[in-house]
Amino acid sequence: MADLPIAYNADGLIPAIAQQHDTGEVLMLAWMNAQSVAESLATGRVCYWSRSRHALWRKGETSGQHQRLIELRMDCDGDTLLLLVDQTGAACHTGQRSCFFRAVRDGAVVEISRRLTDPALLYQNHAPAAPHD
Amino acid sequence: MADLPIAYNADGLIPAIAQQHDTGEVLMLAWMNAQSVAESLATGRVCYWSRSRHALWRKGETSGQHQRLIELRMDCDGDTLLLLVDQTGAACHTGQRSCFFRAVRDGAVVEISRRLTDPALLYQNHAPAAPHD
Repeated sequence: MADLPIAYNADGLIPAIAQQHDTGEVLMLAWMNAQSVAESLATGRVCYWSRSRHALWRKGETSGQHQRLIELRMDCDGDTLLLLVDQTGAACHTGQRSCFFRAVRDGAVVEISRRLTDPALLYQNHAPAAPHD
Repeated sequence: MADLPIAYNADGLIPAIAQQHDTGEVLMLAWMNAQSVAESLATGRVCYWSRSRHALWRKGETSGQHQRLIELRMDCDGDTLLLLVDQTGAACHTGQRSCFFRAVRDGAVVEISRRLTDPALLYQNHAPAAPHD
């Protein structure tokens, strides 16, 4: 694998958008470093960098809600990634399919979807659900 | 308009993903501050914050390639926005429809789409095309 034209920020990170490959649904945004990019490409399972835990974050490792990597894309100046993925179940720690379940409509913030699952079930053997971001 | 549950970063910015509302195509990622969010909601035209120019960046103001705002969504912890937009022409300063026109396939970086337009035509009365990011 040749070096990728990726422009990491001063912290060595790049934002990565995860999009469900077949429906086009935007699921989440998280951050990656060079190691997590390399691991994701090597394994075909998406691995982020958790800014709060300062550790590699293998998506689904506690919740079982994995992301299979279909394709990795880079934007024009190489400072954002778009990951086409196949998401198992809920991408969001709240149990929602997508993290983007709140919208501004008629001047108010409303929830536009329902949870797929109870987050307490996803994380029952682990610490309370929280965004790893 | 009530205050939105948006968590700006230490620089007062938040990443915003622009997605074509009907096709689902992810077009670009840029940054917004509170003023650009408020202006976008008020006018229905997407306005970003240019980190390189340190100024409001009204998408399309030089290129003519506007983004009409269809809906603004927030993620679970309020630190990323998803903008559903109606993009005129090319979202990318290169003349590509989407900024994400490069993918890793078979271990190599390849271009997966063609330019819609010549960027020299978009910016003919202005400085050379460059990402405003």
